[in-house]
Amino acid sequence: MSTDVHDLVIAGSGIAGLSAAVYAARADLDPLVLEGDEPGGQLTLTTDVENYLGFPDGVGGMELVQRGKEQAEQFGAQFEHGRIEDAALDGRPFELSLSTGDTIHTRALIVATGASARWVGAENEDELMGYGLSTCATCDGAFHRGDDVLVIGGGDSAMEEALFLAKFADSVTVVHRREELRASEIMADRARDHDDVQFRWNTELEAIHGSQEKGVTGATLVSHPDGYPTEKAESGVDVERETVDVGGVFYAVGHTPNTRFLDETAVERDESGYIFTQADDVGRLTARTSVDGVFAAGDVADPRYRQAITSAGTGSMAALDAEEFLDTVHEADERPTVPA
Amino acid sequence: MSTDVHDLVIAGSGIAGLSAAVYAARADLDPLVLEGDEPGGQLTLTTDVENYLGFPDGVGGMELVQRGKEQAEQFGAQFEHGRIEDAALDGRPFELSLSTGDTIHTRALIVATGASARWVGAENEDELMGYGLSTCATCDGAFHRGDDVLVIGGGDSAMEEALFLAKFADSVTVVHRREELRASEIMADRARDHDDVQFRWNTELEAIHGSQEKGVTGATLVSHPDGYPTEKAESGVDVERETVDVGGVFYAVGHTPNTRFLDETAVERDESGYIFTQADDVGRLTARTSVDGVFAAGDVADPRYRQAITSAGTGSMAALDAEEFLDTVHEADERPTVPA
Repeated sequence: MSTDVHDLVIAGSGIAGLSAAVYAARADLDPLVLEGDEPGGQLTLTTDVENYLGFPDGVGGMELVQRGKEQAEQFGAQFEHGRIEDAALDGRPFELSLSTGDTIHTRALIVATGASARWVGAENEDELMGYGLSTCATCDGAFHRGDDVLVIGGGDSAMEEALFLAKFADSVTVVHRREELRASEIMADRARDHDDVQFRWNTELEAIHGSQEKGVTGATLVSHPDGYPTEKAESGVDVERETVDVGGVFYAVGHTPNTRFLDETAVERDESGYIFTQADDVGRLTARTSVDGVFAAGDVADPRYRQAITSAGTGSMAALDAEEFLDTVHEADERPTVPA
Repeated sequence: MSTDVHDLVIAGSGIAGLSAAVYAARADLDPLVLEGDEPGGQLTLTTDVENYLGFPDGVGGMELVQRGKEQAEQFGAQFEHGRIEDAALDGRPFELSLSTGDTIHTRALIVATGASARWVGAENEDELMGYGLSTCATCDGAFHRGDDVLVIGGGDSAMEEALFLAKFADSVTVVHRREELRASEIMADRARDHDDVQFRWNTELEAIHGSQEKGVTGATLVSHPDGYPTEKAESGVDVERETVDVGGVFYAVGHTPNTRFLDETAVERDESGYIFTQADDVGRLTARTSVDGVFAAGDVADPRYRQAITSAGTGSMAALDAEEFLDTVHEADERPTVPA
């Protein structure tokens, strides 16, 4: 990669990064898009998108991503593999160390690295992830026709995943560490009313059994009538332990924003790591972060809505804000130096 | 119209209102969409939309609106003619008086009424609007092949309109009341560099000539070397007055948010009338306004970005916020009354 200074690097190639790329490329900012570890982002894990305005018959998640990438490329956006491992944002230009080993420099940065599904820490999850253990029912559900499967979690996404899996699996058991769901009433009712969806309350997943050859064959569950059995087991309390035969395990325990590379920077984040974007002087939200020249878009700054259409919107905001910022930078560069 | 109380009324059927309608209808909130005076909103005045993520070959403004409406209707959104003339938002439910003469009641309201093009106050503009006088070059430019036309304004949209009109008109003259443009440098340079675009500095439009039969035939311009000639003429200063032959006049002097019906309400707005949306408890923006149960989306709350894709995003946010609000309202309704 050249040692030139880029005007704009966009980290992430999900919906937010793509929308930012369309706007930035169309404004002749020559954006470089770093595709990240999950090119296309979370939407590639969704089969059908029904609520993205403009597609009355729905659109496939992967299809929408591909259409967006084509659109960005048509305006000249450049895509490259790699993820930012380390970012030095104190000096000018910014210095980014990539997972590819390259170091690049840029005047402005849009962080659109998204939020990735969380894991629960069960035994063997590293080995079996992708081999019967999944964080995405919509992507992998169809591989489990006729299986008994577990869904781990108690929020809306856990209910959604359970209902989706019930289309394929023989039985779906939702495993939740408490006796009460975090899910909205409507989603909880839908899941409870479904004949093929059962619940295991006050229960957690301790281990997954199987192999990369055979896939998932079973799971060990721990239970305690007061909930949070793993915690209790760790502090010496007796818990019930049971091994069940299942063909698949699905994690639905939330997401973690991909912002670890900002740990040593001044970019303000909340306790979960989600970036705070800043209000302008009259209190209207922008895509600016607490570091001048760094902007954020999509799920990485949005634990609240996390929709494809909101990500596309904030992507466009970030590009427009970056354009404004770069105008100022370039005008400053062109200003003749006044002798002291 | 029935005297039932609606759960959710969405005022406005532009991109923001449509996206809100898709989300709300899909969540079974049975939204009623009031189409307003300009059904489909500002995007219907745009021929080609190139930067709405998901359409690599672009999409017509009107086409995108129609696709969005079809999508909302598929989930059960109801559309009706009418505009809110008066809103009583102090009591519960809200009471809305419509331009149709109907009065309706609703538990929640999403304001997506957009922002409309401003007029300059020249003589005969009421009579000639739509007959050679226009606020939208992209809609009406093609009617002026071979004409000499005026563009009134000095901002980015004035430059955009001038450049667009130069494709059709013989000559385009930008009339600006000062000697300096408010437009960004890049847009100003593009307009200045175009052979068919001229500028009249320190000049204002005083009157438009013509009739609904013949269209626009001329215009009277006033000038003063220090700018703001109309103001100066009104205070008795001598100004230069000239009548020019033109076949079209285009207004590009900004937009006014359609929020006059909120004048007597507690919905906070800025001095131009744009609604302020509120941050949540950690400082992240929501679509909530200062009145509980009233939400805002699209250009009516956004003087900054004003893009189709950002409006679609905030429309979805407003619907999700309204859904959350209505859950609380309905839970409160179901709560048994405790005797005092």
